[in-house]
Amino acid sequence: MTHKIAILGASGYTGAELVRLIATHPTMEVAALAANSKAGMKMSDVYPHLRHLNLPDLVTIEEIDFSAIDLCFCALPHKTSQEVIRTLPETLKIVDLSADFRLRDPAAYKKWYGNDHAAPEMQQEAVYGLTEFYREDIKSARLVAGTGCNAATGQFILRPLIGAGVIDLDEIILDLKVGASGAGRSAKELLLTAEMTENATAYSVGGTHRHLGEFDQEFSLIAGRPVEVQFTPHLIPASRGILATGYVKGDAQAVQDALVAAYADEPFIHVLPLGQVPAMKDVRATNLCYIGVVADRRPGRAIVVGTLDNLCKGSSGQAMQNANLMLGEDETAGLMLAPVYP
Amino acid sequence: MTHKIAILGASGYTGAELVRLIATHPTMEVAALAANSKAGMKMSDVYPHLRHLNLPDLVTIEEIDFSAIDLCFCALPHKTSQEVIRTLPETLKIVDLSADFRLRDPAAYKKWYGNDHAAPEMQQEAVYGLTEFYREDIKSARLVAGTGCNAATGQFILRPLIGAGVIDLDEIILDLKVGASGAGRSAKELLLTAEMTENATAYSVGGTHRHLGEFDQEFSLIAGRPVEVQFTPHLIPASRGILATGYVKGDAQAVQDALVAAYADEPFIHVLPLGQVPAMKDVRATNLCYIGVVADRRPGRAIVVGTLDNLCKGSSGQAMQNANLMLGEDETAGLMLAPVYP
Amino acid sequence: MTHKIAILGASGYTGAELVRLIATHPTMEVAALAANSKAGMKMSDVYPHLRHLNLPDLVTIEEIDFSAIDLCFCALPHKTSQEVIRTLPETLKIVDLSADFRLRDPAAYKKWYGNDHAAPEMQQEAVYGLTEFYREDIKSARLVAGTGCNAATGQFILRPLIGAGVIDLDEIILDLKVGASGAGRSAKELLLTAEMTENATAYSVGGTHRHLGEFDQEFSLIAGRPVEVQFTPHLIPASRGILATGYVKGDAQAVQDALVAAYADEPFIHVLPLGQVPAMKDVRATNLCYIGVVADRRPGRAIVVGTLDNLCKGSSGQAMQNANLMLGEDETAGLMLAPVYP
Amino acid sequence: MTHKIAILGASGYTGAELVRLIATHPTMEVAALAANSKAGMKMSDVYPHLRHLNLPDLVTIEEIDFSAIDLCFCALPHKTSQEVIRTLPETLKIVDLSADFRLRDPAAYKKWYGNDHAAPEMQQEAVYGLTEFYREDIKSARLVAGTGCNAATGQFILRPLIGAGVIDLDEIILDLKVGASGAGRSAKELLLTAEMTENATAYSVGGTHRHLGEFDQEFSLIAGRPVEVQFTPHLIPASRGILATGYVKGDAQAVQDALVAAYADEPFIHVLPLGQVPAMKDVRATNLCYIGVVADRRPGRAIVVGTLDNLCKGSSGQAMQNANLMLGEDETAGLMLAPVYP
Repeated sequence: MTHKIAILGASGYTGAELVRLIATHPTMEVAALAANSKAGMKMSDVYPHLRHLNLPDLVTIEEIDFSAIDLCFCALPHKTSQEVIRTLPETLKIVDLSADFRLRDPAAYKKWYGNDHAAPEMQQEAVYGLTEFYREDIKSARLVAGTGCNAATGQFILRPLIGAGVIDLDEIILDLKVGASGAGRSAKELLLTAEMTENATAYSVGGTHRHLGEFDQEFSLIAGRPVEVQFTPHLIPASRGILATGYVKGDAQAVQDALVAAYADEPFIHVLPLGQVPAMKDVRATNLCYIGVVADRRPGRAIVVGTLDNLCKGSSGQAMQNANLMLGEDETAGLMLAPVYP
Repeated sequence: MTHKIAILGASGYTGAELVRLIATHPTMEVAALAANSKAGMKMSDVYPHLRHLNLPDLVTIEEIDFSAIDLCFCALPHKTSQEVIRTLPETLKIVDLSADFRLRDPAAYKKWYGNDHAAPEMQQEAVYGLTEFYREDIKSARLVAGTGCNAATGQFILRPLIGAGVIDLDEIILDLKVGASGAGRSAKELLLTAEMTENATAYSVGGTHRHLGEFDQEFSLIAGRPVEVQFTPHLIPASRGILATGYVKGDAQAVQDALVAAYADEPFIHVLPLGQVPAMKDVRATNLCYIGVVADRRPGRAIVVGTLDNLCKGSSGQAMQNANLMLGEDETAGLMLAPVYP
Repeated sequence: MTHKIAILGASGYTGAELVRLIATHPTMEVAALAANSKAGMKMSDVYPHLRHLNLPDLVTIEEIDFSAIDLCFCALPHKTSQEVIRTLPETLKIVDLSADFRLRDPAAYKKWYGNDHAAPEMQQEAVYGLTEFYREDIKSARLVAGTGCNAATGQFILRPLIGAGVIDLDEIILDLKVGASGAGRSAKELLLTAEMTENATAYSVGGTHRHLGEFDQEFSLIAGRPVEVQFTPHLIPASRGILATGYVKGDAQAVQDALVAAYADEPFIHVLPLGQVPAMKDVRATNLCYIGVVADRRPGRAIVVGTLDNLCKGSSGQAMQNANLMLGEDETAGLMLAPVYP
Repeated sequence: MTHKIAILGASGYTGAELVRLIATHPTMEVAALAANSKAGMKMSDVYPHLRHLNLPDLVTIEEIDFSAIDLCFCALPHKTSQEVIRTLPETLKIVDLSADFRLRDPAAYKKWYGNDHAAPEMQQEAVYGLTEFYREDIKSARLVAGTGCNAATGQFILRPLIGAGVIDLDEIILDLKVGASGAGRSAKELLLTAEMTENATAYSVGGTHRHLGEFDQEFSLIAGRPVEVQFTPHLIPASRGILATGYVKGDAQAVQDALVAAYADEPFIHVLPLGQVPAMKDVRATNLCYIGVVADRRPGRAIVVGTLDNLCKGSSGQAMQNANLMLGEDETAGLMLAPVYP
């Protein structure tokens, strides 16, 4: 049986990545592609790399007959997403890739995004899409909220440590190195090749990045008390990928053990032997996440390095993994691609 | 039925790319990986990005029991390849990725490679591995010689034009832009990041690149007379990919028609509408090849731009395509991956 | 004596490059910086890398007292430039970096740029700014028209060959590899890091690039008959630099001799020994241009490779060289910087 | 008066960078270039970008007549450097760019470098070359030990904070992003373009990087008690540059004030307004260092970001600054170049 899939906001990078993944998925088929500003165009006009595929033309959201759709990926900008999703049929399974349903608390949403939420009741309903930690809820969910790509990376390396109580909750520092595609296909000066080549920049310094809303929500929930991490992302001259360096206070072996225990049966998350760290390119274009722990020279301190592909495991791959669960498919269907290296 | 595959020279980039492709191939399984200088190591020590796969450890070629192997990819350096291949069982199907069996004429081989061939009789037997043009021979071949990656790109844009007689055979110029991985995983100064970033260099200028041996052999064969193209490759700051710009004298529409006719039924080679050209990244990490034709402002001249991924369609993907044919599989098995973009 | 310099259009890359060069120029001083859309801002808000310099704030063009200015660099967009320049004092020395005064023939201007010229009489007056070939005229010029960066590169490798009559005028092919800054600091999708990394694309294919207007004008003038070259630029993943590969029919030694003769006394243009070619990075951030000639394997054909930095020798460095001449300074003043490598 | 300069180890990147800086230095002249393994070659054979300069050919160290040399830059590999320097004339002024004389304590040297020092008495004599903090000693020094490039960056952001007592000495974390040239012109697999493109990797994780020896020595000296920072460098896809992100516990305003006070009169080190951070490319190819402080959302914590060019301010530029002082020249002579951007 083939599942009919619609992608709303298909003209962004995450939309294109979903199409890439569906192209080799055994039981999914692209039934509709919507991009209001580009409705009427062929997908291959927007993304020539997809021209070999037999894809429907881009349409407006209004033109889609959702009764013929089994699952809808919503890759719209945040704020637009909530406006659209609340108008979709109540029976439609939805994986949202925007930021709109990641935070459950309307006040937290307003704090980080600045506006009142247009569908607060759906905030409650939505299941947070970090598959490895919300798997059972996702299976029966109607609306799953994809996580931030930085938020996913940070949580993969920290959740088991917070959960196991092996690190000092007040002394967590996350330093991320991220590629340009995390900012989407937006023509901004700072993302130009001429600007980024041979460059590196810290941004949202001092605790202003919106993904902190997710960290705060999730880590505090696990710990049963407020947890506020320090988080600084850095833009580096690459198109894809996130490498997260976590600085924690705790015994390195205990940190390692907590991670190994948490991910022992996970198909996509792998913990390296103690003392080794992964490289960003090791997971390129896949749904994999690698994590490595090293003891610092100062006892009681450890460095935890994690990496994933922001467009895949950090976004569209995660969305696909969740969709598989929602549709009753094998969780890894279409996602066991090997990394592209070099 | 699963085919047992051996890869000799598994520690190079083409070896790793073969492993990547086999990882999602429906009927192939990596049975043996040989790399004499790294025998005893795990493949994941050499290529950490493959650590999620269940692969055999690296061994020496001598340690492989070839009676249990259905097909052998030989990704050894040229000259070594011919020495090894002539010692392999006569019944073993072999796809060689080196330069050793591309040229049929021992004199031509010596001219371009400098040494006498160690297995001249096998030079005659080997089928040239440009699948789209030697498909039937490949199906029944025991030994297929993978083409040079530059040679493949140039032939895809030029063979139909020479065959159809629509261009001046004495006025063909090929200007290639190639990524660093074409030179393999060799620690050479000119391939260092510090040297290549923000750089571009022409190399083998003036008709000294060895892939000219293939161009000369094949184009002269098609034309029924000697054809010598002018060919200049340029190294650009990228890891993968070849973009070939061909300058030909002929009517652009006739050029377009010849290409469309040649590739109408090909699964991997696509000709764009007249006036459009492909970008190098459009085919990243796939077995696709895109070709575009543009008429020059001066009548009777056309520009033909072709692109492929040197490690995939230009090497390991082509090898897989040929192996599929040799094993009686669907030619596209395991090769319908969508490009990784951005 | 210090020359007071104004830069109009200071917020673009060529404006910033002029500031860089003036910073170490012995006799120039930045007296005014205009950028109408950013008037009121500090230059360091637009270009933080210039924050260590003591620069005037950005103003509108109207705010500048041109009576206190010795020379004005005009780095405005084309079309805007002609509108502004015709309003400037008649006694002001001007080096224009836009495309507006490169073509002397109003019809040619309209053909390539689409609109009627607003100051056709100034088109006649302007001296074409290719210093090495218009040196004497530039010394006494009031208005000098900076050349296109691609046009400069192509002319440096071809003018002496056309002038000396050593190549076939109907068989000239120019294949350029260029960095992203040639397109300026404009936030366009195709210039994004995520798009350009690992990519290469041909653009303006088929003889549609505007710099052809300059080639046609200059080469026909030298040859005394119409000359139309074939010219295809390619965008590669770099921020600065142009590498031009010229394919010509002529004796390589005669080509070499013509270049050596033309540039023997030039401080910035150097011809390599026959058989060697320069790399793009060899001239990074300088006013140098290197040229190398290689004989093709087919007698009577040669490859000529030239390289320069598009923002320096191809634009702001050339402008400075011309300004030096116009102000009676040593032509090389402030321009003898060594390349930044790696 | 022109100072005659010798460069030992001229074939490395720091040697080439010294030549670049001397090319526009008003009172220095390259009198001798030594590179034992390449003796007899022209410098332009090793570095074609320097071919426009009139440089002496490469010789062996033994061939240099040091009586005609005013100052010698020693850019040899560590361990070789100490062997060579102890044989040089006692009256020769030397700036060593290797690691050999950075640590004063023979035991510390052995701990970090593994071997006994060959010239422990010179370890005592050598002045640590961090100009801004050892200026007076450097003026009268015979032997100055250039600092590590990472060590320089880290110290520029941390020394004033430790000295002013405004941060917790036990809670200092340094996360560095560095370009490939920091590893020198060495043909190593991990530095290949194919490996580094689209990649990021942490290395020397856990407190094993040798520059920690310098941090420990200097910070403990300032603090009057042992200080051990946590330091993790990361290789990013760039050729030049270091961006250091420092995580400290202290009041952001106090941190800012300490930095402003320390560097108020420094020509090369600039502190940005509180709340702003510099980008790596802002200082490209110069002797500048920019530092910015941002308060974290959690009171009592601050992020300090510093950047410099590893080959210039982090190595050869620093060496030139020190040489200026040793020769009685203006400290900034030849070093006021503006950054190359983009």
